[in-house]
Amino acid sequence: MKKIWANSGDSHIIEPMDLFKDLPEHIRDRMPRSVKDPSGLFETIYIDGQEFRRDMPAPDPNKPKKKGFGGINAPPVGTTDDDFITRVIEGNDPEHRLKDLDEEGVWAEVIYPGLGIWAFNIRTAEVARLGCRAMNEFALDFQSKSPRFVNCASIPLVDVDDAVAEITRCSNDGFLIGFLPVKPPAGRPEYNDDEWDPMWAAFAETGMRIGFHIGTEPNDPIRRPGIYIRGRGAAVLNYIETTYGGQRAVTQLISAGVLDRHPELKVLVSEGGATWGPFMADRMDEGYRQHGAAVKPTLSKLPSQYLYEQVYASFQHDASAPAANWAMGWQNVMWGSDYPHFEGTFGHTQKTLHELFDDVDEKTSHRIRIGVFEELFPSVPKAPTE
Amino acid sequence: MKKIWANSGDSHIIEPMDLFKDLPEHIRDRMPRSVKDPSGLFETIYIDGQEFRRDMPAPDPNKPKKKGFGGINAPPVGTTDDDFITRVIEGNDPEHRLKDLDEEGVWAEVIYPGLGIWAFNIRTAEVARLGCRAMNEFALDFQSKSPRFVNCASIPLVDVDDAVAEITRCSNDGFLIGFLPVKPPAGRPEYNDDEWDPMWAAFAETGMRIGFHIGTEPNDPIRRPGIYIRGRGAAVLNYIETTYGGQRAVTQLISAGVLDRHPELKVLVSEGGATWGPFMADRMDEGYRQHGAAVKPTLSKLPSQYLYEQVYASFQHDASAPAANWAMGWQNVMWGSDYPHFEGTFGHTQKTLHELFDDVDEKTSHRIRIGVFEELFPSVPKAPTE
Repeated sequence: MKKIWANSGDSHIIEPMDLFKDLPEHIRDRMPRSVKDPSGLFETIYIDGQEFRRDMPAPDPNKPKKKGFGGINAPPVGTTDDDFITRVIEGNDPEHRLKDLDEEGVWAEVIYPGLGIWAFNIRTAEVARLGCRAMNEFALDFQSKSPRFVNCASIPLVDVDDAVAEITRCSNDGFLIGFLPVKPPAGRPEYNDDEWDPMWAAFAETGMRIGFHIGTEPNDPIRRPGIYIRGRGAAVLNYIETTYGGQRAVTQLISAGVLDRHPELKVLVSEGGATWGPFMADRMDEGYRQHGAAVKPTLSKLPSQYLYEQVYASFQHDASAPAANWAMGWQNVMWGSDYPHFEGTFGHTQKTLHELFDDVDEKTSHRIRIGVFEELFPSVPKAPTE
Repeated sequence: MKKIWANSGDSHIIEPMDLFKDLPEHIRDRMPRSVKDPSGLFETIYIDGQEFRRDMPAPDPNKPKKKGFGGINAPPVGTTDDDFITRVIEGNDPEHRLKDLDEEGVWAEVIYPGLGIWAFNIRTAEVARLGCRAMNEFALDFQSKSPRFVNCASIPLVDVDDAVAEITRCSNDGFLIGFLPVKPPAGRPEYNDDEWDPMWAAFAETGMRIGFHIGTEPNDPIRRPGIYIRGRGAAVLNYIETTYGGQRAVTQLISAGVLDRHPELKVLVSEGGATWGPFMADRMDEGYRQHGAAVKPTLSKLPSQYLYEQVYASFQHDASAPAANWAMGWQNVMWGSDYPHFEGTFGHTQKTLHELFDDVDEKTSHRIRIGVFEELFPSVPKAPTE
């Protein structure tokens, strides 16, 4: 099987446990930490005065499944949690990571911070500010190990002025993309609110890309994170729910006129699939026209045009995603590995790339694997010629 | 412009105001009724002991829009609420409706009940049973006026035995499709629960199709129905939210093994667009495989196959929908007019059909406009040859 290369629009790193050790004690105590319950059934996550319980996966996938288990952390059949932990540890070592990437055929990567999913329950501005700063120091150091690593800056979102300051600082430090959760932190207005306008302006001015990663809604202490439904089919159904947040975030930016006011802004939605793009484009246009009397603000172009021009999306395995480009015309479909997560392609990347692209014309294939990433990050070295 | 014909997988009728006049008083008093507030800002809807307030559209679309208005009932620019009311009244007259259909180039229609959006807040079994019976008598009478009318039976969902009985009765009466809300009524378990299994079996045994119509979640008395977000862009954003319920309903039926156990069951999702189908198919497969250790029940085939074979979807204007068929291979994409609603194509159906299909191969065009409907309802007379 001929090796084909791809850049990844969606990869991850898990920060080391001692990331916050140098922060003042009153800040450090409010950062996320996990305590496993002795029963082995759940862990409790403490963060900024809140407490969350999260189901733990069955330790042995061959044992009977727990009743009503939502399945959001379960591994594929034939793998175990230990496989994942090993991969995370190895992926934190830049040299080992590059070896993994070379073997898989992945060239450069957008790398999201691992603590992201919990960071958005922080409600104290100083905690968010110093926590993001610590994460960004780690990310910047990691990024310096190889030009193939494009780490995301974490943005403090409790106070929009802090967000603007960190975007500016991070851009100067060499970050090319800032990570945002698909929904603002607990208690903050939605992204269509004008309170966020200075932040969009800062992204536009610095030229930093915006990276929304799915599954990053702030968690609700009164229900298990990520569990929307239980019972029959829950593992698949909860997985589906994770995609909607990314769609909501970008359609808010379009409908509220943010992308209209900032035509240079480019927004990536990672891990949510790609074929939703043409679908949402059509749906926005229909709502915009058919409920036109209530549309506010009116836009210079149809909503679909902003999505086709300024929104990007990464997928892993989706068989329909290449046709979202060649048949539906969305040029911004890109591939992503989701390394090192269970939802990703680690261990079968070449098989997946061949299945996806062997029957697709070379222009489309190159665009999705290589070209979109290069358009978003022109300063990153080019992938090896095949 | 050459006239092209299409069947509609999504049309509506609004029941007359006196529909429930012959029901016993204690039932009649619990059926939906609307009282407009003298301010003109909202209406109050009373139903089975619950009370909902709903924003009313601005009477004149040229006047300044109300702050924070969610836009869910707003007309297109250049039309008014009166246009809609006239169309509804005319559409309730079978002869006038057929005249409208002929002018628009619409042949046969799946016709949904108008009270559906409120019926799913009924929590009293007897009210649901007798209310559906009255709606079905009206629908059956309407259906008898033309073989081009395929009215939906309303199914009482407070008690699953009532649902089974009404499905059997309605099938014997000549109904070809039963309407279900995308989410079960207030207080009832989700569709993935085994409590509903006798109902799916009844649909399968009678051969009646299942018609999910989007926007039919039970309403929550503590927030305005249909308003998920306010402020900038809300009209478009709330319109987007309406599509997710249909996706949830069919993915529950797939993931819970319902379509696996009943391969003869055919499920239509109306008005939610169509390109979501290939997207959801891919996403289900990824969740099913990558979180395989938690998957329960396991299925005989991949989730995508049930969607491609047993799930159907109707769209109105979506430019990408034909390619969901010819490029992504989902043969079950069908067109729908949404007559007489604002979201629909009334007054511009021929323009829409030409825009959608003039550049599409004839096989795909015929399948989406005509063939899918004929597959679902083979007893309905064929559309005129073009």
